[in-house]
Amino acid sequence: MSSLIRLHIDAPLAEGGKASISRAQVHYLKTVMRRGEGDPLVVFNARDGEFAATIESLGGKGGVVAAGARRRAPEPEPDLWLAFAPVKRGAVDFIVQKGTELGAARFLPTTTARTNAARVREDRLAAIACEAAEQCGRLSVPAVAPLRPLAAMLDEWPAGRRLMYCDEAGDAPDEEWGGRAGRAAPALEALKDAPAGPWAILIGPEGGFAPEERARLRRLDFVTPVTLGPRILRADTAAIAALTLWQAALGDLRRV
Amino acid sequence: MSSLIRLHIDAPLAEGGKASISRAQVHYLKTVMRRGEGDPLVVFNARDGEFAATIESLGGKGGVVAAGARRRAPEPEPDLWLAFAPVKRGAVDFIVQKGTELGAARFLPTTTARTNAARVREDRLAAIACEAAEQCGRLSVPAVAPLRPLAAMLDEWPAGRRLMYCDEAGDAPDEEWGGRAGRAAPALEALKDAPAGPWAILIGPEGGFAPEERARLRRLDFVTPVTLGPRILRADTAAIAALTLWQAALGDLRRV
Repeated sequence: MSSLIRLHIDAPLAEGGKASISRAQVHYLKTVMRRGEGDPLVVFNARDGEFAATIESLGGKGGVVAAGARRRAPEPEPDLWLAFAPVKRGAVDFIVQKGTELGAARFLPTTTARTNAARVREDRLAAIACEAAEQCGRLSVPAVAPLRPLAAMLDEWPAGRRLMYCDEAGDAPDEEWGGRAGRAAPALEALKDAPAGPWAILIGPEGGFAPEERARLRRLDFVTPVTLGPRILRADTAAIAALTLWQAALGDLRRV
Repeated sequence: MSSLIRLHIDAPLAEGGKASISRAQVHYLKTVMRRGEGDPLVVFNARDGEFAATIESLGGKGGVVAAGARRRAPEPEPDLWLAFAPVKRGAVDFIVQKGTELGAARFLPTTTARTNAARVREDRLAAIACEAAEQCGRLSVPAVAPLRPLAAMLDEWPAGRRLMYCDEAGDAPDEEWGGRAGRAAPALEALKDAPAGPWAILIGPEGGFAPEERARLRRLDFVTPVTLGPRILRADTAAIAALTLWQAALGDLRRV
């Protein structure tokens, strides 16, 4: 028995209602997955939930699905952003795909002093996020923000959101940076008594953050520096490890 | 200033001693990294530690390095195996690379009932593990075991080693399997009061474990079933998440 296809539909869904699907979605259903009219699938979005559905029509300009019973109601999701310095394209794709599997709500590509790659294809990353959301069973599709410099992102930081910053050079004496004293704690420990509420994770580039960037980060009162262990992690490994640890400490990798 | 190259040398290293390097290592140093005689590097292995060193000669059949001061003594490392069902080649490469960054001591490619790929290139994976070990700063290079079926691996399981088994179908009622009652706990919770000592992690194939495999696993007294959260993780994501959580609970992602 082939497994049910999950399709994200960014339009109102309701039991007994119909929804349009795009030309790209028609192509996927018809040509890639070889489904046809009358075949079952699952449709979802974060606002309305997840519904059993049936393919009604698949045409050249688009298609229609008919929503049946709702299988899942909308549910709260962890409010967790992932800011990361763009690395090689494959690694960026990977961060977005696996970050989606691990429940990130929003991706913020962030240029830093030592960032090599200066461009990201946000539309491409949005498609990767959508596909990963469909595959992993979540109701929302995380957004991909436009590329911003770290300084601007920090200047515009929304009040009330904390930032877990993964500091590879965690053993640099803080006196040099004029910030808080002490080595960055392991992530789980640092988050143990942390406030619930909105958070973000910041992963630096392969070359690490520049001294002035680290100094600024360590002085900000919404920042929690953490270490991800004794080995040097590639940026994509660090992103996945950090997301996992945050979800285990404060998110939905805990028993609820 | 270019960063120091770290080279794994599987031969005795001692302050003031010399060690041979392979033709492949000569090629890497000379042709890829453009180093020459007299240039500094770092050499290491798990038995002797890490040493400052100098390139003494780079010839057609091999080379010689001269070890200087020891920078790091040998140190205990977490005794953690990673058993995984082989998925697509890129994902397997990725599991070995990132598993090395996250401190796995040994990789056990494991065929299961629903395994698609039936072959792994152990020599290739060994090279990936070595390069990742050099890059991430660890002293040991994890071994890659020959491909074995799950049943055989369990038949030969060494006494005293526990197995954390990541159960994607964690909500199946245990009465069906005749095993322990209850949903698999989140990994961190399951490990909270776990015994120290040797452990392994088992990650299943994309299609999951077959019912008889899950039944057997849940009946074994050295097995701890865990869940990795509410979303479906690809095998490579699951491997990284599981390693991270184990290291945070019992390994070296904790403060020591």
